Amino acid sequence: MTDKSIFLGEFLGTALLLLLGNGVCAAVTLTKSKAKGAGWPVVTFGWGFAVLAAAYATQSLSGAHLNPAVTIGIATRTGEWGKVPLYLAAQFLGAFVGAVLCWLAYLGQFRAHNKDDVLGIFATGPEVRHPVQNLVTEFLATFVLVFVILGSGQTEGLKLSGTGTLIVALLVVGIGMSLGGPTGYAINPARDLGPRVAHAVLPIPGKGGSDWGYAWVPVVGPLLGAAAAGLLASAAF
Amino acid sequence: MTDKSIFLGEFLGTALLLLLGNGVCAAVTLTKSKAKGAGWPVVTFGWGFAVLAAAYATQSLSGAHLNPAVTIGIATRTGEWGKVPLYLAAQFLGAFVGAVLCWLAYLGQFRAHNKDDVLGIFATGPEVRHPVQNLVTEFLATFVLVFVILGSGQTEGLKLSGTGTLIVALLVVGIGMSLGGPTGYAINPARDLGPRVAHAVLPIPGKGGSDWGYAWVPVVGPLLGAAAAGLLASAAF
Amino acid sequence: MTDKSIFLGEFLGTALLLLLGNGVCAAVTLTKSKAKGAGWPVVTFGWGFAVLAAAYATQSLSGAHLNPAVTIGIATRTGEWGKVPLYLAAQFLGAFVGAVLCWLAYLGQFRAHNKDDVLGIFATGPEVRHPVQNLVTEFLATFVLVFVILGSGQTEGLKLSGTGTLIVALLVVGIGMSLGGPTGYAINPARDLGPRVAHAVLPIPGKGGSDWGYAWVPVVGPLLGAAAAGLLASAAF
Amino acid sequence: MTDKSIFLGEFLGTALLLLLGNGVCAAVTLTKSKAKGAGWPVVTFGWGFAVLAAAYATQSLSGAHLNPAVTIGIATRTGEWGKVPLYLAAQFLGAFVGAVLCWLAYLGQFRAHNKDDVLGIFATGPEVRHPVQNLVTEFLATFVLVFVILGSGQTEGLKLSGTGTLIVALLVVGIGMSLGGPTGYAINPARDLGPRVAHAVLPIPGKGGSDWGYAWVPVVGPLLGAAAAGLLASAAF
Repeated sequence: MTDKSIFLGEFLGTALLLLLGNGVCAAVTLTKSKAKGAGWPVVTFGWGFAVLAAAYATQSLSGAHLNPAVTIGIATRTGEWGKVPLYLAAQFLGAFVGAVLCWLAYLGQFRAHNKDDVLGIFATGPEVRHPVQNLVTEFLATFVLVFVILGSGQTEGLKLSGTGTLIVALLVVGIGMSLGGPTGYAINPARDLGPRVAHAVLPIPGKGGSDWGYAWVPVVGPLLGAAAAGLLASAAF
Repeated sequence: MTDKSIFLGEFLGTALLLLLGNGVCAAVTLTKSKAKGAGWPVVTFGWGFAVLAAAYATQSLSGAHLNPAVTIGIATRTGEWGKVPLYLAAQFLGAFVGAVLCWLAYLGQFRAHNKDDVLGIFATGPEVRHPVQNLVTEFLATFVLVFVILGSGQTEGLKLSGTGTLIVALLVVGIGMSLGGPTGYAINPARDLGPRVAHAVLPIPGKGGSDWGYAWVPVVGPLLGAAAAGLLASAAF
Repeated sequence: MTDKSIFLGEFLGTALLLLLGNGVCAAVTLTKSKAKGAGWPVVTFGWGFAVLAAAYATQSLSGAHLNPAVTIGIATRTGEWGKVPLYLAAQFLGAFVGAVLCWLAYLGQFRAHNKDDVLGIFATGPEVRHPVQNLVTEFLATFVLVFVILGSGQTEGLKLSGTGTLIVALLVVGIGMSLGGPTGYAINPARDLGPRVAHAVLPIPGKGGSDWGYAWVPVVGPLLGAAAAGLLASAAF
Repeated sequence: MTDKSIFLGEFLGTALLLLLGNGVCAAVTLTKSKAKGAGWPVVTFGWGFAVLAAAYATQSLSGAHLNPAVTIGIATRTGEWGKVPLYLAAQFLGAFVGAVLCWLAYLGQFRAHNKDDVLGIFATGPEVRHPVQNLVTEFLATFVLVFVILGSGQTEGLKLSGTGTLIVALLVVGIGMSLGGPTGYAINPARDLGPRVAHAVLPIPGKGGSDWGYAWVPVVGPLLGAAAAGLLASAAF
């Protein structure tokens, strides 16, 4: 993989991930959407299939990490840190662009919406605000994600094989169903921070604040969980 | 693939797609259906499994495009345009026949139904009517569909391999969940136009108009999105 | 495949199919069930995963037809009719035993149930009673099932390969979602007739009649649909 | 497989299984959870994807039984009993630890919860309390699980191959949907007993009793069902 293909793959893939992932949150939240009120089954499957689409499209380019936590976990496991900054930069940039594209796809719905609950379309937030507890939840959920990916034996260097794509996508559905209740399962720093910046800069009427006080939790929790998963995988396998 | 097998595959496959796809819309919409009110999860999974059935049955005959946008996207990517008119003709004809078969399967339900909301069983329509916004939504949703198919590296000439069928089906579920909210995700000109013609000609009591004023959006949006995906795929891969 | 392995496979497989398939209908219907009221998504996925379980367990023994319509469709396509009576006998017997086992698993629920809607747990019934229309619906739904199986190129003689099992299971989910609304999608004569006999003979308080006047429809419709699929597959492939 | 890898695989895998499996029950039960009230579809898919995650991560270490019933069924089929105690010890220990981790992930939710229905997050319980009937239900449900695994021909010694992981996960979804209604489908003694101990020892305000009178049913029923499946598989295959 060249630097160009890594950047392209991670940028395009994470943009696809957020276009679809923020999309499903928009679909069930916004007034005048056909999926209005479809709830948690649609949110969790929607995010999983967003991972499927994004990873299936871009795995030949970059291995489809699409998540700084996955990149950090693989680097912790393999000891290859050289490309990590490139991966992370492309992921955060892609996440921002994907969130903007989602806003474009739902422009009419955003304009017809009269409630100030749109931040939840872009970024995660806790049901019970308690930074340490929220950090623990994000740590555990991301630990599961990264440990399963590493444990599956599918990782070859920094590149995931194709056969595991569907299983990883359903794993994300399962993490959402099982561990998403308290914090909305960021489990991916780019997935949360990129769209939060998009929420902050996009001209959405009555959008409310971007809750920057919470923004560090879905960055730090997933990164620590991923590093722990990498260390345990190094010991166990 | 001979011309005959291409025509047969695309005609039979798109007919299966619409029999099942219009079917799930009928199932959740019509009075006296066991699935009445089952809502968005059933609609989105139903359409995805319609793709699965249709593509799994016919991929050995024609590669199972079953969608003019997929055909255009592949042609843009590969430069092979010779068979495109044959594909498109079979797709539109199949879509029309599939919609008629769906009407036959739900004949008792159509007769027992007393509301004028049956157009939504056949064709898509926007929640917020705004042609440019609706076009953008269809453009983006179809772009995702075609870019993922092309990016997956599964395309060999005009023929998709078998292993990707399930993933493409779940990709369609995901696009519906994530980007179907504003317009009902045609993402396939044949899927919308063929059944709209069927709605116009079938003898359904109190069926209302066929909304021809909107009919160009789910044709033009998907075709432009597919062409853009083909161009980007040519640059990225 | 020996006669013994065919009988064992079809008997055990169809018993598993009905234990799970009737089970999901019991789960959403009966008072004092944790799945009470879970509705159409659970019914359709439950039946599909019943197919998955039954076919995955028994395909090495008999090819896992588990459905007289599939057996007839394959025989029509291949011209091999010799083993058909053996397949059908094992399927009907297995379906009866599976329904009895389901009643055993839900015995406490049947005893706590106070409504006369239990026939729907065992056998299918139409929402709009009109034998010809109901026959057409079952014909079309079974045609889809058998044509996709035949068209998939997975059939080798009377034996389905393993890779297609999951796709066929999801195909059954899709047929339920899309074409199950009018009649409850028997699409399998053994699935309907075996449990209907079980309903007739089991000691269920207040169980009501077994609706024998309708019983021919979910037998004849699927068999005709399967034969038509076999003929079309012979012509198309 | 060394003793160390068996212990590690079963301990880590069963801990993952219960973290996610108890997690989905917490998610739909507890106040202040985003999945509150999402119901049976989320519970059944959540448990299935918990199996997927846990088995996918650990199959290279121990074959990913993650369930004493699976271990007993395989031993009955293969006659290899030497490693059984090691498997079972790791499974029960892992299940306890997984339940504790789940409590940690939902700590804020447990503290905000005001109802005494939290035992159902940890362990199963019957809708109609009748030990013999409940035993029969658990027997049948576990029989299906183990017979399908054995029948699939995927078992090689004590080790399941990777390709069957997804199908076994969906099989668990199906068993939940179809046979989970009466007792909540333990189908795994470790899944029930380990978390029941966790419920007994964890400091959860207003948690109520641990229902030890019922605790033998989801241990004995699954073990008998698994042994029966092993015996029938030995005869049938």
